[in-house]
Amino acid sequence: MAQVIADRRDIDFVLHEQLEVEKFSQKEKYAEFTKKTVDLIINEARNFAVKELLPTQSIGDEEGCKLENGKVSIPQSYYKPYELFNEGEWLAMTEDPQWGGQGMPKAVALAAANYFNGANYSFMMYPGLTHGAGKLVETFGTEKQKELFLKKMYTGKWTGTMLLTEPEAGSDVGALTTTAKKNNDGTYSISGNKIFISAGDHDLVENIIHPVLARIEGAPAGTKGISLFLVPKIWVNDDGSLGEPNDVVCTGIEEKMGIHGNATCSLTLGGKGKCMGTLLGLENKGMSAMFLMMNEARLLVGMQAMSCASSSYLNAVNYARDRIQGSSLTEKTGAGVPIIKHPDIRRQLLTMKSYVEGMRSLLLYIGYLEDMVELSEDLDEKSKYQGIIDILIPISKGYVSDKSFEVCSHGIQIYGGYGFIKEYPQEQLLRDCRITMLYEGTNGIQAMDLLGRKLGMNKGRPMMDLMGEIQQTIAKAKKFDSLQPFAAKLEIALNKLAETAIHLGGLAMSPKIEEAFAAAYPFMDATGDIIMSWMLLWRAVIASDKLEKGPKKKDIAYYNGQLKSAEFFIFCILPIAMGKIETVLTANSAAVKISEDSFGGK
Amino acid sequence: MAQVIADRRDIDFVLHEQLEVEKFSQKEKYAEFTKKTVDLIINEARNFAVKELLPTQSIGDEEGCKLENGKVSIPQSYYKPYELFNEGEWLAMTEDPQWGGQGMPKAVALAAANYFNGANYSFMMYPGLTHGAGKLVETFGTEKQKELFLKKMYTGKWTGTMLLTEPEAGSDVGALTTTAKKNNDGTYSISGNKIFISAGDHDLVENIIHPVLARIEGAPAGTKGISLFLVPKIWVNDDGSLGEPNDVVCTGIEEKMGIHGNATCSLTLGGKGKCMGTLLGLENKGMSAMFLMMNEARLLVGMQAMSCASSSYLNAVNYARDRIQGSSLTEKTGAGVPIIKHPDIRRQLLTMKSYVEGMRSLLLYIGYLEDMVELSEDLDEKSKYQGIIDILIPISKGYVSDKSFEVCSHGIQIYGGYGFIKEYPQEQLLRDCRITMLYEGTNGIQAMDLLGRKLGMNKGRPMMDLMGEIQQTIAKAKKFDSLQPFAAKLEIALNKLAETAIHLGGLAMSPKIEEAFAAAYPFMDATGDIIMSWMLLWRAVIASDKLEKGPKKKDIAYYNGQLKSAEFFIFCILPIAMGKIETVLTANSAAVKISEDSFGGK
Repeated sequence: MAQVIADRRDIDFVLHEQLEVEKFSQKEKYAEFTKKTVDLIINEARNFAVKELLPTQSIGDEEGCKLENGKVSIPQSYYKPYELFNEGEWLAMTEDPQWGGQGMPKAVALAAANYFNGANYSFMMYPGLTHGAGKLVETFGTEKQKELFLKKMYTGKWTGTMLLTEPEAGSDVGALTTTAKKNNDGTYSISGNKIFISAGDHDLVENIIHPVLARIEGAPAGTKGISLFLVPKIWVNDDGSLGEPNDVVCTGIEEKMGIHGNATCSLTLGGKGKCMGTLLGLENKGMSAMFLMMNEARLLVGMQAMSCASSSYLNAVNYARDRIQGSSLTEKTGAGVPIIKHPDIRRQLLTMKSYVEGMRSLLLYIGYLEDMVELSEDLDEKSKYQGIIDILIPISKGYVSDKSFEVCSHGIQIYGGYGFIKEYPQEQLLRDCRITMLYEGTNGIQAMDLLGRKLGMNKGRPMMDLMGEIQQTIAKAKKFDSLQPFAAKLEIALNKLAETAIHLGGLAMSPKIEEAFAAAYPFMDATGDIIMSWMLLWRAVIASDKLEKGPKKKDIAYYNGQLKSAEFFIFCILPIAMGKIETVLTANSAAVKISEDSFGGK
Repeated sequence: MAQVIADRRDIDFVLHEQLEVEKFSQKEKYAEFTKKTVDLIINEARNFAVKELLPTQSIGDEEGCKLENGKVSIPQSYYKPYELFNEGEWLAMTEDPQWGGQGMPKAVALAAANYFNGANYSFMMYPGLTHGAGKLVETFGTEKQKELFLKKMYTGKWTGTMLLTEPEAGSDVGALTTTAKKNNDGTYSISGNKIFISAGDHDLVENIIHPVLARIEGAPAGTKGISLFLVPKIWVNDDGSLGEPNDVVCTGIEEKMGIHGNATCSLTLGGKGKCMGTLLGLENKGMSAMFLMMNEARLLVGMQAMSCASSSYLNAVNYARDRIQGSSLTEKTGAGVPIIKHPDIRRQLLTMKSYVEGMRSLLLYIGYLEDMVELSEDLDEKSKYQGIIDILIPISKGYVSDKSFEVCSHGIQIYGGYGFIKEYPQEQLLRDCRITMLYEGTNGIQAMDLLGRKLGMNKGRPMMDLMGEIQQTIAKAKKFDSLQPFAAKLEIALNKLAETAIHLGGLAMSPKIEEAFAAAYPFMDATGDIIMSWMLLWRAVIASDKLEKGPKKKDIAYYNGQLKSAEFFIFCILPIAMGKIETVLTANSAAVKISEDSFGGK
């Protein structure tokens, strides 16, 4: 039967052949995660995704969310899988079993997440945000806060959210105006309006825990005066029992382009002056708490996006095998053939395939690096891995969501007119995917993060470390005759990227800072292309090695497919990245210099 | 007040300064279309679009179309503007006044169409398809058919459609199975199922005229056995009065990603054996009739797409001027600034601006060439212009719809999270725009048309003529010091494109035909980029000339904006096209050679 959501052979390849996650089980922390256990986890994740989640995807899109008489309703089809998801203990896969987690390596959890998000990521936002909010409690909470909230969140009994955005404070979080006033009992009275709150209200569970960014009266302006609070929908008494409903009111839900199954709420806190919260972490340190959680949140967004792309690809390849249309270019019989025979369809399918594979490897590799930071006992090594993670995060969000959207658009195109109608999943995948380019920091913000914060971090060390890793793969590839042309191409590109990074970094500290930042996005884009080429070359090295050593018969097509993905990307996409790099080096000033009036429209 | 839909100064620039359409009025055919008249037409078109059509855009999207009890309902808000549209005689702007047209130059009509389609192109499909169907009647109809149908169609009293697609015959029209059997009275009995019929059924007017592709019993297989028929929803008697309802039944309407205001119908013809039609044109010549109309239809799709992009751009630039978020990179006051100050926002806006301007010029230029074919008395000149049109058509559809979709995506991105919600027009423009990449031949089909049919046409003469035109603009640009670097860059790209076209054309006639067709799409893409650069350089030449001669004060910002569009496109986008050209020259075989199993998913 045709596979859906994600290609299992490819998931296994990344986990076991590219990242070799089994070696983690040699360490005590992950001792139980042998290959057998990992395979079992992925089996279960896939079964749950295919059987319980996937059927709710288009129903949830159609049903959507409603606010009626002050009550938010979400798709009815989400209740049962939510219960099963918690029974399977999937919400906090990587967390400490003490708090209800499974203590799993991150790389493995991300592979499972590929299935879950590809099946229905609107649904997955409910547990996903709960996990993120729980992580804030775990990291910054007092023992009491953890005792009251954490296990209930990690087990999905209560859900969580994240209240940052306000109408005038989107990308510029520091502009927020929600206030907090300390009460005599140590709690705070919160007052303000928050918008775009995913999973902001619903009756999936009895309580919702809102981490809220707000400004304590008298705090400094901007990001330095922001604190983090824990505001439950229903007050939680000191003994853990539920108290009175808190003064948190959903005043509207957004009609959106996609992710209709997720309730995007406007919430008014303290409209009656009775919204209470407790401080989470230190006064005025709310933004640094946010930053600490940002890597995880951005990586998750990349996973949501890539999972849409992965589903769209498998649907497209299955459709192309079945759909008869047109005759062969070479065999002049005139008989109809499956469209997978047509070169332009193959070009699109291989574009989708190579991006999906490269992106999957990148995301799971970041999880792997996080595991290595956790496991390593060498401080230099820890810091090296953390640096590479920091460089890769904006790419895993910004580049991956951009390219996933493009992949989803190809996924529509392969279906022809059928791609545009709701009878097939392709158009929903594109609509759902589109928001990943916007939330958790727009992709423009990601590009600025890469250039402004990450490139110069530790005197450029992380970027050099990353390039060193790529160089190692190039060296390995050179040992295979057939891969030498691939390796040579990537090496030229890598050297050019290094030159460009130095040039752009310098420009960003010069009076031409605006020209530098106008080139931040193409720089991220080209860097992403080179990282894709790297991931695919890495895969090709392993596949070449396996093919040389005599693979199992059933694996030959898969390994050959790895060689083709690398070849295609390096010869058909990487040359275009070289053009992008040229534009970054030129750092043309037109976008900076054009006058506002010259944009027209007045 | 901020402009919407299309920048009027830019429309005027293309009509009067780039294409100089006023010179048409020296010819008798277009004598009345002086500059004053043209300006009046554009004023009226804009007023109608802004006041009557634009308010129906999001309402129509929300309301959509329904099939209930065998009756198709379309948005209620469409009825009044449809009446006013016909009163304004906008449906057949370019057609013979004898049949209800206005006899307007095509270039002018396309400028008006930019406003109409940018305001609500779902609505515009009703008159648009009617115009196309009317054109078939005008071109291939008998005198009787013209008398019965034409004026009623061109004046919008009846609407028209186009019935090509069947479930198993999409891109491969030749696979259609609808049959026609000649009756004793000379009519035909038609039987078959058609799908994806835009404006296929509704009660906007009393009758709908369906041109239908079908196969006469005993006709040859494939495209050679297809004939065209005229099938009215309600039979039209010889005296022009309405007869019995014909046996054409709407069996379903599609739920789609966008263009919700247009009823996309499945129609069953002759389910009760009583569907009657008359032959339009010659037996078995239906496909050549279709081909004759294809240029116009594809150009219209380009216009629909570009109009979405044009609206999205103006919305984005207006939003960027108003939305305060973040502080300036250079003025370290910390105060919030409009986001149009941020370099990455400017990069996106200038990307949108330069594409929209280049695409507008391209589409109106094609209209201009069509006018020249009409007006010219020199057969060589006529044939030269027609050849350039033929080359440009797949680009005006394939490339323009691709880039318009990208522009619409930027238009969402500029709005941040607000771009994803239905409160603002940006997400609808993207959803509506997406289908333009699919219908009237997918963009893959366009790329194959360019490579397989157009490139080698008349021994490559049209492509050489087009390049000659581009070369002329380059020569003019070289006379301005400030444009010399632009001209030099474009000249290098043009020469490279010429080399690539010859190489790829040769490859397509070699055993490597599949590799050639796998490169057809990147070839179209790169050709489009070079044509955009040409259009923008052409604009910059005019702007430089005007700036040298001392322009009106109010025009200075506009002309400077023209220089910036050209500079940006040639230095920030054209280098990427050079990378695409390299991939075409390489014509890598990975997409052709990869085995079907290696695509995975089984």
